[in-house]
Amino acid sequence: MTGFDLPSYLAERRAAVDRALEASLPGENVPPATIHKAMRYSVFAGGKRLRPILVIAGAEAVGGSMERVMPTACALECIHTYSLIHDDLPAMDDDDFRRGRPTSHKVFGEAVAILAGDGLLTHAFRLIADNGAVLPDPRGLRDVIAEIADAAGTLGMVGGQVVDIESEGQKISAEMLEYIHTHKTAALIRAALTSGARLAGASPAALGAVRAAGGHLGLAFQIVDDILDVEGSLAELGKTAGSDRRKRKATYPDHHGLEASRIRAKTLIEEAKAALAPLGPAAAPICALADFVLERRS
Amino acid sequence: MTGFDLPSYLAERRAAVDRALEASLPGENVPPATIHKAMRYSVFAGGKRLRPILVIAGAEAVGGSMERVMPTACALECIHTYSLIHDDLPAMDDDDFRRGRPTSHKVFGEAVAILAGDGLLTHAFRLIADNGAVLPDPRGLRDVIAEIADAAGTLGMVGGQVVDIESEGQKISAEMLEYIHTHKTAALIRAALTSGARLAGASPAALGAVRAAGGHLGLAFQIVDDILDVEGSLAELGKTAGSDRRKRKATYPDHHGLEASRIRAKTLIEEAKAALAPLGPAAAPICALADFVLERRS
Repeated sequence: MTGFDLPSYLAERRAAVDRALEASLPGENVPPATIHKAMRYSVFAGGKRLRPILVIAGAEAVGGSMERVMPTACALECIHTYSLIHDDLPAMDDDDFRRGRPTSHKVFGEAVAILAGDGLLTHAFRLIADNGAVLPDPRGLRDVIAEIADAAGTLGMVGGQVVDIESEGQKISAEMLEYIHTHKTAALIRAALTSGARLAGASPAALGAVRAAGGHLGLAFQIVDDILDVEGSLAELGKTAGSDRRKRKATYPDHHGLEASRIRAKTLIEEAKAALAPLGPAAAPICALADFVLERRS
Repeated sequence: MTGFDLPSYLAERRAAVDRALEASLPGENVPPATIHKAMRYSVFAGGKRLRPILVIAGAEAVGGSMERVMPTACALECIHTYSLIHDDLPAMDDDDFRRGRPTSHKVFGEAVAILAGDGLLTHAFRLIADNGAVLPDPRGLRDVIAEIADAAGTLGMVGGQVVDIESEGQKISAEMLEYIHTHKTAALIRAALTSGARLAGASPAALGAVRAAGGHLGLAFQIVDDILDVEGSLAELGKTAGSDRRKRKATYPDHHGLEASRIRAKTLIEEAKAALAPLGPAAAPICALADFVLERRS
């Protein structure tokens, strides 16, 4: 990691992802304008672009380029954004603000917010399919889609959200909480890394290393999110402070305490970096991102 | 069409589609059980399986087999079902009954209904990707996904639903109504036929014929739906009678009168069959389905 300039790396890739998203999403004037405005409102709401950057870093870790995987990088951001729009709905987490701005349904109404999410999820698979053209063996597209669909669907993110909602206000076990975290958040983060590596033609061994790192990194990300939620303030997070706590959602610190949570996150990040060791310097961006996940304050 | 036994054809294919859906969807006991129960509740609600059967008929029209396209046939039913679940939500059409049974959100709550739709849409793309293995040139998977995603997304079905919702209670032009119909319903029906033909290795000319027929058939289907809605009773439709009218949604007969609507539907079906003429007897199932769409009473 010595000498790796993470801030420049993040700024450059984030700008490239933003340009690609701008070009990929239908314009605000393309009919029906309302839905495209709504999709863009949420996609361009100041996100960190962590998932697309992980797609890119996954490709780079096995010798691939950013350009090669950009459509799938954008697709992961579309999937992430759709999940935020639907999670914020009154029937779900009922959040009025996200990143300091009114949520989609507050601006466009519930119907359009639901449809904006549906539109983004659909658009994501279109983008991934387009990306398949770069694969040396085009049959590999099936594996990329299967991995992302499984991570996003009821055996992954959607499944985690269902259990999260069912558990609200209830006392749940530490095992159940880990189920929610690994499914709701970690699965898609892992799929971001592995899909980038797959599209870049990773060997089975390299893919296994990236997948292991992705699982550790994803869980660490959610634990840090929980820690920030407990510690956080409105100014820092741009959303209602301690909102998980307010809704009596269980957090990792609730179960294990703040100190043990910090230690677990740190250990997971060490494990992620250890898994990537066989890939050598090419994995420096993922390792730096892993440290960033641990140290972030928002 | 002489001698083509449509009732047997429909019964056999519907049973095969039901078996394939049964095998494809996660079981009711697969965790999280709630979401898989909700997905199955709506998928196995007595649908006619028109869209999957059109995928199969599209394949057969160019010499392909049912088995070859079954995953995509199931995917189209998943996409159709997700759209019904989301359309029925309180924020959208607010329907309590569908096919005579309580809608998903009445049984499982709004949060699970939204997520069941999300899960079905995601599962659909997984199924289509799996189906790509049958393609002689695996790069064709990109075209199949692009066509279905465009038909289902904001330039197709989702776009039609947005305009439909925005138009509720308003006076809209005949052109706008046709926009809603071609996008909300016809696009996915056309994509069902063309994706079946594509997966079966259709020539460009054959694909063009199937696509043209699909567009006519899809619009005819929605016009007949409007006619039935105006004429319909609770017993016939299994949902609240005249529900589009009750919500002051514009229908084709509102704009053109019942008689002109019947003539337009009939003309479209004739055009669909004419487009299929070059395919010869292989297109008999689609032609019989077209007649069925025109003559159906529910």
